[in-house]
Amino acid sequence: MKILKVNDQISIKRSVDNGTEQQRAIVKDIIESVRQNGDQALKDYTEKYDGISLDDFKVSQAEIEEALGQVDGKILEIIKEAADNIRSFHEKQLRPSWMTTEENGTVLGQKITPLDSVGLYVPGGTAAYPSSVLMNVIPAKVAGVKRIVITSPPDKKTGKLPPAVLAAAKIAGAEEIYKAGGSQAIAALAYGTETIAPVDKITGPGNIFVALAKREVFGDVDIDMIAGPSEIAILADNTAHADEVASDLLSQAEHDPMASAVLVTTSYALAEQVSAEVDRQLAELPRQEIAFQSIENYGAVYVAENMDEAIETVNSLAPEHLEILTENPMELLGRIRHAGAIFLGRFSPEPVGDYFAGPNHVLPTNGTARFSSPLNVEDFQKKSSILLYSEKALKDNGEKIAAFARMEGLEAHARSIETRLRK
Amino acid sequence: MKILKVNDQISIKRSVDNGTEQQRAIVKDIIESVRQNGDQALKDYTEKYDGISLDDFKVSQAEIEEALGQVDGKILEIIKEAADNIRSFHEKQLRPSWMTTEENGTVLGQKITPLDSVGLYVPGGTAAYPSSVLMNVIPAKVAGVKRIVITSPPDKKTGKLPPAVLAAAKIAGAEEIYKAGGSQAIAALAYGTETIAPVDKITGPGNIFVALAKREVFGDVDIDMIAGPSEIAILADNTAHADEVASDLLSQAEHDPMASAVLVTTSYALAEQVSAEVDRQLAELPRQEIAFQSIENYGAVYVAENMDEAIETVNSLAPEHLEILTENPMELLGRIRHAGAIFLGRFSPEPVGDYFAGPNHVLPTNGTARFSSPLNVEDFQKKSSILLYSEKALKDNGEKIAAFARMEGLEAHARSIETRLRK
Repeated sequence: MKILKVNDQISIKRSVDNGTEQQRAIVKDIIESVRQNGDQALKDYTEKYDGISLDDFKVSQAEIEEALGQVDGKILEIIKEAADNIRSFHEKQLRPSWMTTEENGTVLGQKITPLDSVGLYVPGGTAAYPSSVLMNVIPAKVAGVKRIVITSPPDKKTGKLPPAVLAAAKIAGAEEIYKAGGSQAIAALAYGTETIAPVDKITGPGNIFVALAKREVFGDVDIDMIAGPSEIAILADNTAHADEVASDLLSQAEHDPMASAVLVTTSYALAEQVSAEVDRQLAELPRQEIAFQSIENYGAVYVAENMDEAIETVNSLAPEHLEILTENPMELLGRIRHAGAIFLGRFSPEPVGDYFAGPNHVLPTNGTARFSSPLNVEDFQKKSSILLYSEKALKDNGEKIAAFARMEGLEAHARSIETRLRK
Repeated sequence: MKILKVNDQISIKRSVDNGTEQQRAIVKDIIESVRQNGDQALKDYTEKYDGISLDDFKVSQAEIEEALGQVDGKILEIIKEAADNIRSFHEKQLRPSWMTTEENGTVLGQKITPLDSVGLYVPGGTAAYPSSVLMNVIPAKVAGVKRIVITSPPDKKTGKLPPAVLAAAKIAGAEEIYKAGGSQAIAALAYGTETIAPVDKITGPGNIFVALAKREVFGDVDIDMIAGPSEIAILADNTAHADEVASDLLSQAEHDPMASAVLVTTSYALAEQVSAEVDRQLAELPRQEIAFQSIENYGAVYVAENMDEAIETVNSLAPEHLEILTENPMELLGRIRHAGAIFLGRFSPEPVGDYFAGPNHVLPTNGTARFSSPLNVEDFQKKSSILLYSEKALKDNGEKIAAFARMEGLEAHARSIETRLRK
């Protein structure tokens, strides 16, 4: 693993993939077809891209029950405990509508309401993670969303979805599940078909066709942030254990050849130890080819002159995951401006948050922690402003409001006020 | 104004304008040029599209001071009072970081941090509204954003920005202002030029080129919801005053030929009176051509059988602005699921919220109140999750976490946990 000084090159940011012209054209066509031809288009594209002909997209109750029976009992218990932890954390994000009152009769406030319906996209193949089902469905449930829909591409041979995904969906409380993937699934969620009623918001990761489709329907429905490759940064001093640092870097690297794993440390000794330890542990990993590419292309150990420089480096990376492995991690928390999730101390390795502790694992990637947040309950709610003026409040302020409107050239706005003042 | 039954046609939703192929290609080119050639590209496009050659994009302190002197003193006072009200309302949206602790040593929480920098786009010409400057800048200020940038296209003749816009910016507390418009301004905000450092989020309305550019840079920076035409729905019973209802409908209609103004009422008598009153008042408006087109194409009076039906109609419209002009408006508030801002009672006409009361006037348009919120302080902040496990917490839960990781085929995740457990 390469060792660099922080001023060598401190960005792990990769440009957002907006697709090729051809990919964009394909996605536009698919969306248009699904809008026009509904289920028939969905059926055709499923045959074309997923290699299977389906008569019914909906996962039946029998399939869900069958899936529960296929998952190991101990694993089911672990999924349930994780779901409880996730639910408990997200319930703490709930907050009330509020209002303020004034003596002149004015009432102002903010009303919180859940979305009516949301759709979760679950990728197919080995990326069909039950943990992602929990992390997307549970915040929506806690928010009060009544209708939660899941779509995921069917297996080419069996035409079914992975049992662990269905089990996680059932445990999280989502039972309206469809076998559909790619841009066509996103189009169906956004605009509806005969079988699938449209939803108000689409979340969940996916390949470039899913990402482009989400970007295209954005505005007609809401979407979550478009996910890029995953990344971890570890901020460590000479108290960190090299084997632990290395294992945490690799846990990120095994996700994806594009994933990024970065150590920022004030200790050159640690840098050298971690670099060697990464090589050693890498050799023993089942997904070593993926992890190798990630470490080779997007991995680095940065050595900083001091902790100030190290912290500034972390802030400039704005990593999705940040581990702080220093003598007093809590003391540094206030200086971290940009990070999706912050893991404090050596007993809080990133997988604790990926599966179990409770905070969401859907996090801003690719430097977007500068402006985005972990998926949370508020992503499934919206606010409405509340305004009530009394007769006195309007009489006291109406002329000023009318003058403001006239300055902007909007006479009818002024008259709407004056119609009342005149009486 | 046409009178319809609610089941005749209850959608005012217009499809999101994704632009023509040609427009999209132009926008992509402009963004690419600005990324490549920075200030020079900005200068060229400003000459091409705004018709003026500028040597310096930055608005000087002298220009800002000059603008303050050009705005009527009374108007300045009104802008200041509005700014105070807006600040006061948005300060109530602030909330603290929080954490929870458990006896086994676990600490979980959510840390709130302001964005580092944001950019506000202000359209040119008659759409350069000082009130929009207040409504975008103040929430960012309250959120704690340190760098707030404004861009707006310069006047073709003078090369300057409107005095009232500069005055509002100064009052709101934004003094980094550039003379640039269109896609090129959005590209400069997103990627930076020699003169303009990039920002993390771009807000503010604009024409189709601005909207397409925002959609294109989304992901590299955050954007606010892409704004569509404005709309109002009024929910009224037989206690409403026809002249007031009509004036409020017209205050929306005068914005834009695409704006929508809709009355939903349980009273056929009111429907007839309002329809006649709209025609009468329309004849006296300076912007009557715009308002006429809006009323003609996107205006309607819907008569509902009863209040239940009327409320369902309003929810299906998900209007940007909703006025409730019934005997007891507060009683109906809990039944409104979708609306950007809700104005209660006859002394709370919409312009009260457009300029002065305090809640934001940047609201979800075109039915997006189903899933979006008024612009608010949280749009200028982001959250980071905090996770701290103690040695005990990891020992108690580590095996379960490792088992979950292995089920998902992620061995390095399991080993990251086990490296600690082994010791």
